[in-house]
Amino acid sequence: MNRLSLNQWTTRRWSVGEAVDGCVRHGIPAIGLWREHVAAHGLSETAALVRSAGLRVSSLCRGGFFTGPDWRSENRRAIDEAAVLGAACLVLVPGGLPAGSKDLLGARAQVSDALAELAPYATSCGVRLALEPLHPMYCGDRSVVSTLKQALDIAPPDVGVVVDSFHVWWDPEAADQIARAGSRIAAFQVCDFLLPLPSDLLLGRAMMGDGVIDFPPLYAAVSAAGYTGDIEVEIFNADVWAADPDEVLATMKKRYAELVLPPG
Amino acid sequence: MNRLSLNQWTTRRWSVGEAVDGCVRHGIPAIGLWREHVAAHGLSETAALVRSAGLRVSSLCRGGFFTGPDWRSENRRAIDEAAVLGAACLVLVPGGLPAGSKDLLGARAQVSDALAELAPYATSCGVRLALEPLHPMYCGDRSVVSTLKQALDIAPPDVGVVVDSFHVWWDPEAADQIARAGSRIAAFQVCDFLLPLPSDLLLGRAMMGDGVIDFPPLYAAVSAAGYTGDIEVEIFNADVWAADPDEVLATMKKRYAELVLPPG
Repeated sequence: MNRLSLNQWTTRRWSVGEAVDGCVRHGIPAIGLWREHVAAHGLSETAALVRSAGLRVSSLCRGGFFTGPDWRSENRRAIDEAAVLGAACLVLVPGGLPAGSKDLLGARAQVSDALAELAPYATSCGVRLALEPLHPMYCGDRSVVSTLKQALDIAPPDVGVVVDSFHVWWDPEAADQIARAGSRIAAFQVCDFLLPLPSDLLLGRAMMGDGVIDFPPLYAAVSAAGYTGDIEVEIFNADVWAADPDEVLATMKKRYAELVLPPG
Repeated sequence: MNRLSLNQWTTRRWSVGEAVDGCVRHGIPAIGLWREHVAAHGLSETAALVRSAGLRVSSLCRGGFFTGPDWRSENRRAIDEAAVLGAACLVLVPGGLPAGSKDLLGARAQVSDALAELAPYATSCGVRLALEPLHPMYCGDRSVVSTLKQALDIAPPDVGVVVDSFHVWWDPEAADQIARAGSRIAAFQVCDFLLPLPSDLLLGRAMMGDGVIDFPPLYAAVSAAGYTGDIEVEIFNADVWAADPDEVLATMKKRYAELVLPPG
């Protein structure tokens, strides 16, 4: 359990205070924070709370959305927050096609340009950026970066990537690209892929074991690439959100041990 | 219009006879037939009908589903039918994970093995097989082959591939892989990608212009690769199916000319 992290959106009804308490109660040593929750609790208050609880901040979610308005100021603010929180990385969701646009190559160039511009600022703040390729079904509206290969191709070398089981499990190139990524893996997130997907495609992220993903090969690839950081469980799922968060954490620990970690 | 083809599922309420009449009435020189409709009309009767109407059969849909039961006998039958119809190719939908399985690599090996076994039989029948990579959102339940690169990697050299705008538009490697495919492009299918997708993900295929796909770059890539065959419009969409099929054909011709063909 010493690398398990609760991504806060998995228990989104919980405030920062409740989520930190939950992690401590369940012996989970790290937390992935969300900016909305952090803002509600207060930035420096959150930083002090997680520090005093002895939790690592495995990530701050999230910056990005580079194809929309205000990306520059929003991302600088997110970088500042990640620095205060001592987050291991700032997760960046690239953003989809601008409204009404069909210019996919143009949108991809926007993401690439934005990363090049932000990277030096992040470095100067001591914050690691982590670009997250999203499953290709979100290409139109959420992420024009659809594969690890593409993320590694377009991001500057000092920008890391997120390996998320939900987004990469289908990709025949995933293992090769994880190996290629090596030290650029800034975060490893896990959840399962629900089948059939719910009508709200964002909520297809399921508890490990409730979908079709075989985790050990992915864990092995990420480990072989040299990643030793935290492993975040990030679930967007109506049933999980409706459940008692303490039960969710108990199930999460059990499934993580049984299904994600290598046997033995 | 001399390369436009009506994929019969676009007007699925129409029988073979009605679809053939519709193509003739609208000056559409080719048709992509579906096995279900052909069976209802009679195989040799359909062959005679399309021949006497002067239509090309741009494809027969479909074989494949290699990860399910009975794939061998079903695909041999489909190959026999494609031969009788003189179809330019038999479209193969690979099939998803077997029920209850998470063995993605195993399922992919099954597809590869099945293709190697079927290819000589198809060749002996004078039928061209066309493996269709499906959008990664169908990886679990419909197609463990998710990209053109993967299709070209796993199919024997004499098996062709289908380039379908809906399935490949998001793929950063699409242009390169279309170029690589060259003479292995056995079919080119177009429709748009609806956003947001409907709750039945199979019905997200829209009339050109109703989604987010920019067709000219795709048309240019397929043309540069040397493909000179028919261009099939294949739409699975509740609204299109509910509309008057004659209006659908009129719209399809208009949108094809305006949005798919290069300007000028």
